Amino acid sequence: MKIDGIAYRSVWLADDRWSVHILDQTKLPWSVDILRLTTRDEAAHAIKSMQTRGAPLIGAVAAYGLCLALRADASTDAMERDAALLNATRPTAVNLAWALNRMLTRLRNTPVAERVATAYAEAALIADEDAAQNEAIGRHGLKLIEAAVRPGRPVNVLTHCNAGWLATVDWGTALAPIYTAFNAGIDIHVWVDETRPRNQGAALTAWELGKHGVPHTVVADNAGGHFMQHDMVDLVIVGADRVSRTGDAANKIGTYLKALAARDNNVPFWVAMPSTTIDWTLTDGVRDIPIEERSAAEVTDMTGRLADGTIATMRVVSADSPAANPAFDVTPARLVTGLITERGRCSASEAGLLSLFPERQ
Amino acid sequence: MKIDGIAYRSVWLADDRWSVHILDQTKLPWSVDILRLTTRDEAAHAIKSMQTRGAPLIGAVAAYGLCLALRADASTDAMERDAALLNATRPTAVNLAWALNRMLTRLRNTPVAERVATAYAEAALIADEDAAQNEAIGRHGLKLIEAAVRPGRPVNVLTHCNAGWLATVDWGTALAPIYTAFNAGIDIHVWVDETRPRNQGAALTAWELGKHGVPHTVVADNAGGHFMQHDMVDLVIVGADRVSRTGDAANKIGTYLKALAARDNNVPFWVAMPSTTIDWTLTDGVRDIPIEERSAAEVTDMTGRLADGTIATMRVVSADSPAANPAFDVTPARLVTGLITERGRCSASEAGLLSLFPERQ
Repeated sequence: MKIDGIAYRSVWLADDRWSVHILDQTKLPWSVDILRLTTRDEAAHAIKSMQTRGAPLIGAVAAYGLCLALRADASTDAMERDAALLNATRPTAVNLAWALNRMLTRLRNTPVAERVATAYAEAALIADEDAAQNEAIGRHGLKLIEAAVRPGRPVNVLTHCNAGWLATVDWGTALAPIYTAFNAGIDIHVWVDETRPRNQGAALTAWELGKHGVPHTVVADNAGGHFMQHDMVDLVIVGADRVSRTGDAANKIGTYLKALAARDNNVPFWVAMPSTTIDWTLTDGVRDIPIEERSAAEVTDMTGRLADGTIATMRVVSADSPAANPAFDVTPARLVTGLITERGRCSASEAGLLSLFPERQ
Repeated sequence: MKIDGIAYRSVWLADDRWSVHILDQTKLPWSVDILRLTTRDEAAHAIKSMQTRGAPLIGAVAAYGLCLALRADASTDAMERDAALLNATRPTAVNLAWALNRMLTRLRNTPVAERVATAYAEAALIADEDAAQNEAIGRHGLKLIEAAVRPGRPVNVLTHCNAGWLATVDWGTALAPIYTAFNAGIDIHVWVDETRPRNQGAALTAWELGKHGVPHTVVADNAGGHFMQHDMVDLVIVGADRVSRTGDAANKIGTYLKALAARDNNVPFWVAMPSTTIDWTLTDGVRDIPIEERSAAEVTDMTGRLADGTIATMRVVSADSPAANPAFDVTPARLVTGLITERGRCSASEAGLLSLFPERQ
């Protein structure tokens, strides 16, 4: 998508055709800083520190991270070790493991001398496929937004966290239908959950919607239930970091609360994700999806822009109080109206997913 | 309750016996600043700007504000005008209107020359009664915490916003049972919702629990549902700004989401409030309780402490994005396990409330 009229992806190769560029998402929305990754450790750090984030995107960056690792040592032992190291950077999103497994499957039978070139080709495929899948999600989700049009008012969509183009290679997952509808001329307005503690909604979703011109309003994470009680939300669309075979959806902490409010107010609640986000091995997401516990400092400290333009970090919690920071929660399938995938929409159930992905029977 | 070993109330008369002291709650938890109010307008400003806040407390401060107004002009016209002005400072909490009506009822038949003295006496009664009512709420709520004791682990109570002694004259509403249980030696731990956008949980509840020594952990507002899914919350206790005759409870924005999560996970959800918080004229809280819309700046900007100790305000939302800020939501009675009042506990229903307050038949 575009920043000030220039088309970007969220990960791309530098002109040298080997080093990897990403946007430093910890610097957004205050400045657009492009990072250059040249080693496995730089890639691992970028994922772990969330300079790059979003379930689909970290899969693509990890794939390129393995390319960088192979440049240093393309032996099988090193490759397996480096893939494991990259896979351990974040625990919840399944796309990371999916992308690295795909790379290893391709590379294990590739002669050592050809591995670097093959790896770059495969990583590029992963990135291109992600962008294409998300564009398809946009088309399939557009129908839901078209169906919600009512005369004299915009379609109000609420979203949580950032599942936009910044969270994927391009287009986004939850935001792909929104961009598609906006581009088609539909009058649309997005309620953007702030998404504490890392503020990905206020910092990233608001920024990318604003750069594309999509009308939106940032609200505290606490506000969505009230808006739904008062007919101010037509549908909810969120992304996911891992979806079980049965349709349970792990997504940014707080998603479950919005799903409960949607159900209580008969507001459709949709989860948009490429099939790479589905973990076909899990049948009970609430029980079995590992939830990343991140640093308490993400709760106690916040970064923003002071009046003089300086970017600063400050403490926002009473000085001696501890904090806890589970980064994701799992919304049970029973609360999900449906899933939007690159192959179409389905119910949040094993039967629904298998109707779109019969090869997983 | 105590700050560093010294007993405080949240509003009290100065040594001159006429000017009014409050803690500046916009400065907490970073510094304990005592404000001196000397005029009607200073009192109105303190309530409107939330230097003083909390449904029961703003009733008491408004009563003292009327005392200050009467010192300037005790005529009936002025008294009615000044009471109306004070009543217009905040729209959602009913205690404000309750306290001012009580003052006017007492003062309308009082000779002008005696009004100032009578007003101070009545305001002191309002304050003393609030403290006593909250102490009683603590005793009635203690039973719920005692019933939740399980061997080998603390009783985990989740609370939202600040319904502690800072929100009342003393003790608090939701926190009164917690202080009472802690003082009785019960092993208790409090999950403190940050409570965006004004952070009353992270700034005020965490501070006052910490000063009293109560174990607690600050969490993002998004986290409570996840904790409830994983058996990490034994009960939820929140305060209220207005409760309908039928048990619908207006409280800080986001309370409704926690009530939904509590219901979904069979966690008891209790609302603690003195009877002054009940609006006996309303039967449909979701429809009829007015919800205050506060400044977007409360969402877009945050105040905290920089590393050098300076208190600063910074923008935390992408620069050009607008924000909306409904300050309260209404939890329907069907989601409330019960109410804790100064007269005891009851179901969140008209029948329940009338069983405790039969004079309201």
